[in-house]
Formats: sequence, C-alpha cells, structure tokens
Amino acid sequence: MKYIEDRVLVKVRFSELDAMGVVWHGNYLKYFEDGRESLGKKFGLTYLAMYQSGFVVPIVKVNLNYKVPIHFGEKMEVVTRLIRSKAAKVIHKYEIWNLSNGKLSCDGTTEQVFLNENTRTIELLIPAFFEDWLKGINWQVK
Amino acid sequence: MKYIEDRVLVKVRFSELDAMGVVWHGNYLKYFEDGRESLGKKFGLTYLAMYQSGFVVPIVKVNLNYKVPIHFGEKMEVVTRLIRSKAAKVIHKYEIWNLSNGKLSCDGTTEQVFLNENTRTIELLIPAFFEDWLKGINWQVK
Amino acid sequence: MKYIEDRVLVKVRFSELDAMGVVWHGNYLKYFEDGRESLGKKFGLTYLAMYQSGFVVPIVKVNLNYKVPIHFGEKMEVVTRLIRSKAAKVIHKYEIWNLSNGKLSCDGTTEQVFLNENTRTIELLIPAFFEDWLKGINWQVK
Amino acid sequence: MKYIEDRVLVKVRFSELDAMGVVWHGNYLKYFEDGRESLGKKFGLTYLAMYQSGFVVPIVKVNLNYKVPIHFGEKMEVVTRLIRSKAAKVIHKYEIWNLSNGKLSCDGTTEQVFLNENTRTIELLIPAFFEDWLKGINWQVK
Repeated sequence: MKYIEDRVLVKVRFSELDAMGVVWHGNYLKYFEDGRESLGKKFGLTYLAMYQSGFVVPIVKVNLNYKVPIHFGEKMEVVTRLIRSKAAKVIHKYEIWNLSNGKLSCDGTTEQVFLNENTRTIELLIPAFFEDWLKGINWQVK
Repeated sequence: MKYIEDRVLVKVRFSELDAMGVVWHGNYLKYFEDGRESLGKKFGLTYLAMYQSGFVVPIVKVNLNYKVPIHFGEKMEVVTRLIRSKAAKVIHKYEIWNLSNGKLSCDGTTEQVFLNENTRTIELLIPAFFEDWLKGINWQVK
Repeated sequence: MKYIEDRVLVKVRFSELDAMGVVWHGNYLKYFEDGRESLGKKFGLTYLAMYQSGFVVPIVKVNLNYKVPIHFGEKMEVVTRLIRSKAAKVIHKYEIWNLSNGKLSCDGTTEQVFLNENTRTIELLIPAFFEDWLKGINWQVK
Repeated sequence: MKYIEDRVLVKVRFSELDAMGVVWHGNYLKYFEDGRESLGKKFGLTYLAMYQSGFVVPIVKVNLNYKVPIHFGEKMEVVTRLIRSKAAKVIHKYEIWNLSNGKLSCDGTTEQVFLNENTRTIELLIPAFFEDWLKGINWQVK
C-alpha cells in the first residue's frame, strides 16, 4: 500500500457531546474532515484547487469503527492517510488517537469520486489535474 | 403590533442534547429556523422566492431567552410571529412551548435584512417584491 | 433474513446543508437516528427501557453509501430495518428515499452493542430484557 | 467596567457553512463556547470546578449581532471578556474578528446563572466558590 500521512490535533467541543457525556457518533465525521483538510493543505490538494479544475469530490462511502468513547477535554490526534488508488477515487483512512490515554478511539475510511461540475457526471478516469498531483507525491510504502 | 403567526411541532433529536441531557443552547436556533420556514410556507414567503427576486436575507441579530431546559422525548411547539415593520427588515419573534409540561421553554427574536445579490449591499428601502407580499397579508393586531 | 421495518418521513433543515447546497454527509446519521428511534417506538424498544434494564447501547460500527445528494425542501423517507441477529448486537439497516424524485439517496448500516452500565463491559450474551423483547416480535422474512 | 480578557483562534469547519457558503448563524455559538472555555482555562474557572462545587451554570440569555459573514478558510479570533457583575450571574461579551480581512464579524453576549445541582433552583447570591475566584482576579478596567 502506497500512502501519504498527516497528523492533526483536534479539540473536542462541549457541543459535540451527547447526553451520555461522550462525543456523539456522527461528530467523528467532523474530525475526519479536519484530518482530510489538514492532509490536503500539507500536500497541496485543496477543495478550491479541485473546484477550479472543474470538479467537486463528494463522499460516496463512509466506514466508521468506534473503539473507545471520547470525553470532554481529552486531546485527540487524527491520523489521516490518503491511499494511492488506481481508480478515479480519493480514498482516505483515518485513526483517531486519544492522547490523554494512548488508546485508539476510532478508525474509518471515506471514499470520494470526481464529479464533473458541468456535466454532473462521475468521472471514470482520473482527471488530469489529479494525475499531475499524484505524480508529484513522494509516497510512503507499507 | 401587527403580526402573522404560525405554529409548528418540533421533535427533539438525541443528537441535539448536550452532556447535561438537555438541548444544547445553540440548537434552539434550528427550532427557530423550523418556525420561520413553516411560517414562510403558510404565508407564501419562501427563501427561493426571495432569491429569485435577487435578494438573500441574512440574519443580522439574534436574541434568545432560555426559561426551562428541554429534555429528550418532550414535544415542543414553536410559535413564530412575523412582525410588521416599517423598516427594510424581516423581524420574527418566537416562543418555544413544551407541550409535555405546558411551560414556556424559550423565547427570542431574529432580525434579517435584504442583501442585494448583485451589489452585495444592504437594501435601505423595502424591496418591491416584499412590499407586494406585505400588501397581500391579512394582519392580526395585538 | 428476519427483520422488522419502519418508515418515517424526515424534513431536511437548511442548517443541514453544506456549501454545495446539499445535505452534509455527516448529517445523514441524524436521519438514521430518526429512523432507529421511530422503529423503537413502533416496536416497543426504547433507549429508556434499555437504560432502565442497566444497559447503554453505543454504536460501534457505521457504514454509509451515498447515491444521490439531497437538496433543501426535498421530502425524504427513512426505511429502517432491525435485523434478527444471533449475536449480542443490535443491527439496523437503512435506506433513505427521496420522495420528490423517487430515487434512493443513501443506504447504510449501524451496529450497536450492549454495554453494562455498572461494569462498563460489553455483554457477550444477549441480555434477558432483549431476549424477551425478541420473543415478542412477529418477524418478517426475506 | 471591570473585566478579564482572552483571545483564541478558531478554525472554521466546512461542515459549519450553510448553503450560501458562509458560516451558519447558529454555529457562531460554538465559537463563543470556544472563547468561554479558553478564558476559563486561562483564569482557572472550569465547568468541572463549578460542577464539583455543586453548580451547573446554564446559559439563560444570548445576544448576537452579525456584521460580516465568515467564509471557509478564513482565520478567526474570538475575543472573550468576562464582565465583573454584582449579581449572581456569569456574563461574557464576545467579538469575533476575521484575521483574514481585519473586520469585526460578529459580537455578542451570553448570560449564565448558578443552578444548584441538588435543589435545581437558581442561586440568588453569588456562590462561595465563585466569590473566592472573583477575589483572586486581577481585573482590567475600561
């Protein structure tokens, strides 16, 4: 597997807790989004760049596995990996680590496709701007 | 005071509760938005209509007074009043009533202005499409 | 597959849209929660009942497949199925149908476990209160 | 006016935008909460400390004035001031500054009361733990 990786700290908000006093399960997707954005900035892949190339990249698939609940005030690190894919897809894998207790809180995957802004159809081939970006990446291997 | 009124039931979601087991204070603004939308539908004033007339109507002011917390499973009624104003503003007043115990849970106000989509400036005079709409209303008085 | 089914209408809120003008992908989990709650009410399985039996039932797994974006004002129906499982799990499957255009907008799955309130450990056997509830159900088969 | 002040940076999330591409008005209350929490940490006043003293401090009043919309990617600074009050209240004033263009995006106020955890009644006198905390503060004057 070829990938690139980013790590970003996330602060849990009081408003993200549920009535059990732990982060509501849907809010983890905000942390994934934080991770995706941080990785994009680090490696020069922004939504704006995609948009200017004529594409939006909607999420078409989400997987989440919850391991240990997150409490208020705990420090979280989102480890995000963009996986090298041969398909016209953007695949990220995530791990949310609780730095307060060293435990893996959650892992998951998101899958995005390239939607042509004009035709509103999904691109079956990797768009040129993304091919170019892929070529410039110094991939890690595992 | 001249006004029109709408009443709409709102269901409290589990995800809207905070760690104290009551609705998080910011989520009341979603219930106000439900009220505004319901009143708009009832009296033929939709965001789409405004937009097609060349205006967006951003909220510029919010007041909220919290009286009694809302718990999960309680049935709420949002009473929304659009207040007749001489200014180029859209003013709504809200009351959220807890039908489970008959108590007033919250009241508040929002104020919107007319923003010209093209010039991005705030309209100082009431736009023609809104004048027309105002004329067709059968106002209540209190 | 044995299952029970519920259908509930969901209204899309303006605040649930993202900057693309479609429902933000994380907000679908609110609709799933609406579906779960509605099914629970219909078949007499409430969070309160679980809690009073000494259990919380946290979500440990989520899968989501997005098909067609949801826009403001579109009417959605959440079809929720609780699947008969031999394991000490609560498994729901969901479909969100867009009644405005007849299209399947999204499907997905959630998996919950029984967490003993006192010991904070996951139950490996189906709790007695849930066994009782399962016995009373008139399952559909497909 | 006697006060203490804190400044904290806030990152705007994609999921906090509305269909107009600007931060949804209700989400500003999350930024206020960030400011309150940051000030509390800086000056040794935490929700946990309050709770351990037997009090919860629910918000009973909110005022918000929106000046300039916030866009994705803009850097915001929340300036939070806790105002010295003779009443048994916790009053914060907020300004959200857009560091990307130097403009004031929003200002507002929140008011909290002391709710006795046991009696569930609002305290009319300033609780001892809060008096003690107030005495230790080196107030700014304006």
